[in-house]
Amino acid sequence: MPHIALPEGLPGIRGAMAFRPQTAKPLNELVEVLLCGPGTLTLGERELIATYVSYLNDCFYCQSSHGAIAAAHLDGNEELVKQVKADFQHADISSKLKALLVIAAKVQKGGKNVTAEDVAKARSLGATDLEIHDTVLIAAAFCMYNRYVDGLGTTQPRDEATYRERGRQVARDGYISVSKTYLPVESTTR
Amino acid sequence: MPHIALPEGLPGIRGAMAFRPQTAKPLNELVEVLLCGPGTLTLGERELIATYVSYLNDCFYCQSSHGAIAAAHLDGNEELVKQVKADFQHADISSKLKALLVIAAKVQKGGKNVTAEDVAKARSLGATDLEIHDTVLIAAAFCMYNRYVDGLGTTQPRDEATYRERGRQVARDGYISVSKTYLPVESTTR
Repeated sequence: MPHIALPEGLPGIRGAMAFRPQTAKPLNELVEVLLCGPGTLTLGERELIATYVSYLNDCFYCQSSHGAIAAAHLDGNEELVKQVKADFQHADISSKLKALLVIAAKVQKGGKNVTAEDVAKARSLGATDLEIHDTVLIAAAFCMYNRYVDGLGTTQPRDEATYRERGRQVARDGYISVSKTYLPVESTTR
Repeated sequence: MPHIALPEGLPGIRGAMAFRPQTAKPLNELVEVLLCGPGTLTLGERELIATYVSYLNDCFYCQSSHGAIAAAHLDGNEELVKQVKADFQHADISSKLKALLVIAAKVQKGGKNVTAEDVAKARSLGATDLEIHDTVLIAAAFCMYNRYVDGLGTTQPRDEATYRERGRQVARDGYISVSKTYLPVESTTR
């Protein structure tokens, strides 16, 4: 049961966002810019970073949601998402993404863990400054979203099908668009 | 030295925000709503929560910045800010704020650490659902801001006077207004 009186029928972050539309607006805009906005990391790569950090933070709702969105961007390859969570160094992803996941994992533990060597390695494998920036901020942002979702004790469905369906929807329409189905209009406009 | 080519002369999160104005916009809006927007927690209480979490995350820039803003809201009482960081249970703050700081500290370690008892305690001391929500989200958000600032290896001035001056400015004008001095206009409009 959630720790506070969140609206019923809206699992995970959706209940928290509906409870407080004023904060939902920037929270939605941040995830939209980072995970769907213009950039050179593919949408699948960004969602894999978000999924992996949520997995490290042991947030069931976020790793399931973003894992499903990642899979939707990756031609439905749910197996790859599982491999990244279990052992990304041996997953079928680029060396550049592996180096970025190393940085993301360090940010998850605390920002000071990122070293000049980690960054040099990512850069040598083709990562740009913007990609390194976005990796750090995606990892940091999911340390927020995960704590928000778990810290309020939100309800988190266990069936994969729910996440799969919603994952396809978000992959197709983006976060802000999908949030319009449950948030008041003024908190979803940009 | 920062890990990526951040604009010079802008310490801490300001350099990171100037590097990426698209993400600076929601990051600024979130902190403005949470720390300056309408609410029943005083501005000083909210800044103390932000400062305490930044202290737990060992982020020098954020604990100094928000500590200075907190002090500005508390009639310049820098001693109280120091007491809260060192041992808030014996600081001269309300029992309600102490119970909220317990929740914030648990969120800092991970959202699942927050218990129904922690929340019941805060509620018995007068905390509302909105105040509990905002405490969880302030704590979660500073787990992001702290990691963002440290994960990019931003420059962080050591002299207290810099933070003190800026603290007064933010306490008076708010975050978005002050960010207009270094961010492009389109990223600071609401």
